[in-house]
Amino acid sequence: MVTTPQWIMIGGDGPESYYQHSSNQRALLEAAKEKMNEAISAKLSLNLISDRFSVADFGCASGPNTFLAVQNIIDAVEDKYRKETGQNPLENIEFQVLFNDSTTNDFNTLFQTLPPGRRYYSAGVPGSFFGRVLPKHSFHVGVISYAFHFTSKTPKGITDRDSPLWNRDMHCTGFNEAVKRAYLNQYSADTKNLLDARAEELVPGGLMLLLGSGLRDGVKMSETVKGMVMDFMGASLSDLAQQGVVEQDKVDSFSTPLYFAEEGELRQIIKENGKFTIEAFEDIIHPYGEFPLDPKILAVSFRASCGAFLSAHFGAYAMRKAFELVEVKAREEFSKIQNAKPGMQYLIVLRKI
Amino acid sequence: MVTTPQWIMIGGDGPESYYQHSSNQRALLEAAKEKMNEAISAKLSLNLISDRFSVADFGCASGPNTFLAVQNIIDAVEDKYRKETGQNPLENIEFQVLFNDSTTNDFNTLFQTLPPGRRYYSAGVPGSFFGRVLPKHSFHVGVISYAFHFTSKTPKGITDRDSPLWNRDMHCTGFNEAVKRAYLNQYSADTKNLLDARAEELVPGGLMLLLGSGLRDGVKMSETVKGMVMDFMGASLSDLAQQGVVEQDKVDSFSTPLYFAEEGELRQIIKENGKFTIEAFEDIIHPYGEFPLDPKILAVSFRASCGAFLSAHFGAYAMRKAFELVEVKAREEFSKIQNAKPGMQYLIVLRKI
Repeated sequence: MVTTPQWIMIGGDGPESYYQHSSNQRALLEAAKEKMNEAISAKLSLNLISDRFSVADFGCASGPNTFLAVQNIIDAVEDKYRKETGQNPLENIEFQVLFNDSTTNDFNTLFQTLPPGRRYYSAGVPGSFFGRVLPKHSFHVGVISYAFHFTSKTPKGITDRDSPLWNRDMHCTGFNEAVKRAYLNQYSADTKNLLDARAEELVPGGLMLLLGSGLRDGVKMSETVKGMVMDFMGASLSDLAQQGVVEQDKVDSFSTPLYFAEEGELRQIIKENGKFTIEAFEDIIHPYGEFPLDPKILAVSFRASCGAFLSAHFGAYAMRKAFELVEVKAREEFSKIQNAKPGMQYLIVLRKI
Repeated sequence: MVTTPQWIMIGGDGPESYYQHSSNQRALLEAAKEKMNEAISAKLSLNLISDRFSVADFGCASGPNTFLAVQNIIDAVEDKYRKETGQNPLENIEFQVLFNDSTTNDFNTLFQTLPPGRRYYSAGVPGSFFGRVLPKHSFHVGVISYAFHFTSKTPKGITDRDSPLWNRDMHCTGFNEAVKRAYLNQYSADTKNLLDARAEELVPGGLMLLLGSGLRDGVKMSETVKGMVMDFMGASLSDLAQQGVVEQDKVDSFSTPLYFAEEGELRQIIKENGKFTIEAFEDIIHPYGEFPLDPKILAVSFRASCGAFLSAHFGAYAMRKAFELVEVKAREEFSKIQNAKPGMQYLIVLRKI
């Protein structure tokens, strides 16, 4: 079992919660719905759809986007079943949804906000998705929605003062080649563990849908809006250290367990793992553009997804101060943001061999 | 789907938590271990033990007793497998434990206190156990440990001022015959729903182990230590109403969704349901006597299991005051407690037909 990343979304449904500020991911999920539907229609074997059908979401957080993702999948499975058998899925299939996230995820909020009127049985599955969390052959379709960019830990050397990689490129936005290589190696090893675990838990012929953020080949993270905001976060933390709000040591030893891979890297990792075939690799086009180009909204949105992680290292006060500075920097460098290279939102469809 | 009872154990692991004060139930579980082992050894068909074996605990609370209960079962299954096949269960069986309780149970604490080194996959299953919470054929052995005495709601009439049953026998300790009949009817209907749901979720031939508190035929709850303490709780609430600490109206409309059935009643309900055979119905003898005969420990122990329910109606302050009075009353009526009739701790083993 590998280490669980301590990257937890802000739980509950308060003003800073992931629950309240995950609308960007939600819009992308809605944009992906049609492609998920097509993938299931074309790639899922009808004979896997029997009286019991299990869907698993790995890295589900505390909601509400996970409910949309799993409902998309269930709708698509029901559609396919209805069209190809002429029978009513409601009478013949019992759906179960397995919600997985780290043991410290806020499952209480997840369970208490389950959609009323849902037509599936629910279970929460605690544990790191880099290792096994379910018995063999537990599910038919799995989804990892905006959680496929995590590493299990920061690569060796990044937070080590004696390493040549120390304190360069705090978030691996790619401007330093050696840092990027260290992150890619870590990401590659972790993702192969993740794929090994899912390959055992998935029924033969079952599908994994990977929905997430990456990069087109040759684009550096630091050239995209997301990379720029992450660099603003790093710069803001350095400013706070200079102002004495946080300790310089804490900033020096800080790094994020994230790696946004290029398309070619993702294909290579999946191929080397060898447990799945790539059935589709598609761009998801965000209906309102990749990010809302507004400094305030950018800061609020990144605070929702990264705030808890920063709070754990620096405290809630410093976290809030940092995101105030992020907004200022985003305003100052707005023309750079407007001319950023596009990132890539992908849907990868894998089938277990 | 029937109503979920709002009877939640105090979560977390603070000084008032169920987690800290469930040692009485724990001792009973330990006393029951041998009988559970015997039941599985004698009654579980070997051909149900394959590469995947699922155990479910219905009404698991936030721990830690559920971990002991499910480990007892897993140990017994492994023993049986080892003895009868000569093979090593660790190499051949993947265990999964399904932890069920109400949606408002503290699953976060449950997940974060899962025993290190456990050899099973875990999942939390939120929802009322009076209805279906799992797909068909989801588990092989289920346990209901000290949660088989709940009703889904207070029987009609008990909290209705215009009913002849109103405000008599606040906790159904049995001194009023009409109240007892109303509770028995409610309990019988609820328990049949519970058995119907488990019969669908259990694999054919699978076992349900019901571990709990009841009464020997002809004994009234009010004649046992537990019934006496429950009557002290009722009397304490009435005292607090007279002192103006709580509103008389709130006390008048208060009642508990519990019914401790007699052995004959339990047998009758299971027989009428018709989905299970009774394979064993055994007394569990508590090693230190049924209850510790100490007014303070009695009050603390009942506060752990009933405190959250009282708090929800009367607030935390009144709840604490009520249990202070319970201790005083237990001290005053100590000779009555010492001469109480014994209750009954049972292990019922059911096999799905």
